[in-house]
Amino acid sequence: MIGHYIDNTNLKSYSTYADIVQLCEEAKLYDMAAVCVLPCRVRLASDLLRNSGVKVCTVVGFPLGGDITATKLYATRQALLDGADEIDIVIDNGAVKDGNYNLVENELKIISRLKREYDFNLKVIVETALLSEVELITLTRIISNLECDYIKTSTGFSTRGVTIEDINIIKQHKSPVLKIKASGGIRTYAWAKELIDLGVERIGTSSAVLIINEGQNGEDY
Amino acid sequence: MIGHYIDNTNLKSYSTYADIVQLCEEAKLYDMAAVCVLPCRVRLASDLLRNSGVKVCTVVGFPLGGDITATKLYATRQALLDGADEIDIVIDNGAVKDGNYNLVENELKIISRLKREYDFNLKVIVETALLSEVELITLTRIISNLECDYIKTSTGFSTRGVTIEDINIIKQHKSPVLKIKASGGIRTYAWAKELIDLGVERIGTSSAVLIINEGQNGEDY
Repeated sequence: MIGHYIDNTNLKSYSTYADIVQLCEEAKLYDMAAVCVLPCRVRLASDLLRNSGVKVCTVVGFPLGGDITATKLYATRQALLDGADEIDIVIDNGAVKDGNYNLVENELKIISRLKREYDFNLKVIVETALLSEVELITLTRIISNLECDYIKTSTGFSTRGVTIEDINIIKQHKSPVLKIKASGGIRTYAWAKELIDLGVERIGTSSAVLIINEGQNGEDY
Repeated sequence: MIGHYIDNTNLKSYSTYADIVQLCEEAKLYDMAAVCVLPCRVRLASDLLRNSGVKVCTVVGFPLGGDITATKLYATRQALLDGADEIDIVIDNGAVKDGNYNLVENELKIISRLKREYDFNLKVIVETALLSEVELITLTRIISNLECDYIKTSTGFSTRGVTIEDINIIKQHKSPVLKIKASGGIRTYAWAKELIDLGVERIGTSSAVLIINEGQNGEDY
C-alpha cells in the first residue's frame, strides 16, 4: 500500500477547518503515514487523529526558513505541546549561500535537543531547488551527523520540486540511518513509485488520494 | 521623492549577507522609508542602518500566516529586540475562511499590546488575492478598530499583488488614521505613483531602485 509512505499534505494559507477534517479522514481511510498541516491546525488534526495510528506533522520556519533559531525552537516546542508527532523544519537557505554552515548545524543541534523531552520525528527541509550539488552534499553530510530522522527535499513553494538527481546525490552522501522524504510536485502514482523504488521512505504530497487511486487501478505496493 | 514611500524589500529565502548590505546601502542612498528583510537578517540591517533614518522592517508569520498566535507574539518580540522598527504580520487566512474573525482580532490585539513596551509600526498583511470583497471590508473594519498602523495588501507570494479595486475598498471602509501599504508586483514608477496618488502611504517592492530611476527620468515627487 503506497498510502503507508504518504504525508497527506495541506499547507495552503487559506485551508479551512473543513479541509483539515477531510485531510484527516482521507489519511485514516487510506492508512497514510501522517497528515502535514500548518501549525495553527495541529491541535485540530491531533484531536481528529487520536489513536488512529496516523501521525500529525507540521512545519517550522516554513516555507522561507528565515526565522531566527530562537523562534524556530519556540515554534517547534509549541507544535509538540499542541500534539505534533513530526516536525518538518526549513533551514536558513541564506546562511547556506553565505557559506555559514555553522549556523545551519547549530540551529539543527538546538532543535534536535528537544528529542530529550519529546518523542518526535525531525525532518529537515533543504530546498534542493536552491542548492548547487556541493551545497546539497555538504548539507546531507551535516544532517547525517545530527539527531535528525529525515532529510526532506522541498517545500513545494520554490521553483521546482524533487528530482531523481536530488535523491541520487542524497543517497550517495547520507548516513545509513538518515531517511529521505521526497516532496514538491509529486502528483502521479508513477512518480511516487519511482521515488520509493529509489529508496525514499516518505512522500509529501497534496495529491495523495489521486496517487493512491491511480495505484489501485494498477500495480500497487 | 518617491523613495520616501518605499520599503526596499528582499524576502528571498536565499538572500545573502551581501544582498542585505546592498539593500541597506540603496535605502540610505535614496532616502527610503525602510528596508524589509527576513527575521534572520534584522540584526544585520539594524547594525547597518543605525542613525541613518531608514527603518528596519521585518515579517512575522510570513508568507502563509499559519503560525499560532503565541509563536507570532514570540517572533515579534524577538524581532523588536533584534532592532526591528516595523513588523509586517500575516493574519491567519484560514481563520478568515472559517468566518472566525474573533481569532484574527484577538491575535492582532495580543500583538499590538507590545506597543506598550516597544515603539514600532504594526502593518497587517491581509493577502487581498485570497479575499472576497466582504472579507476585505470586514478585515479593514476590524484592523481600523485596533492599534495597528497600516493595512498591507499582499505578501508577494500569492496569486496576485495589489489592485486599484483593493485600495478603493480599503479606503472606503478604513478609519481615517489607518494607513495603507501596497505591495505585490509593484515594479514600475507609473504603477507606484498611481497607488500613491490614490492615497497609499507606503509601497513594498523588490524593484525600488528601478522605480526610483524611472521616476528621476520623468516627473517625480
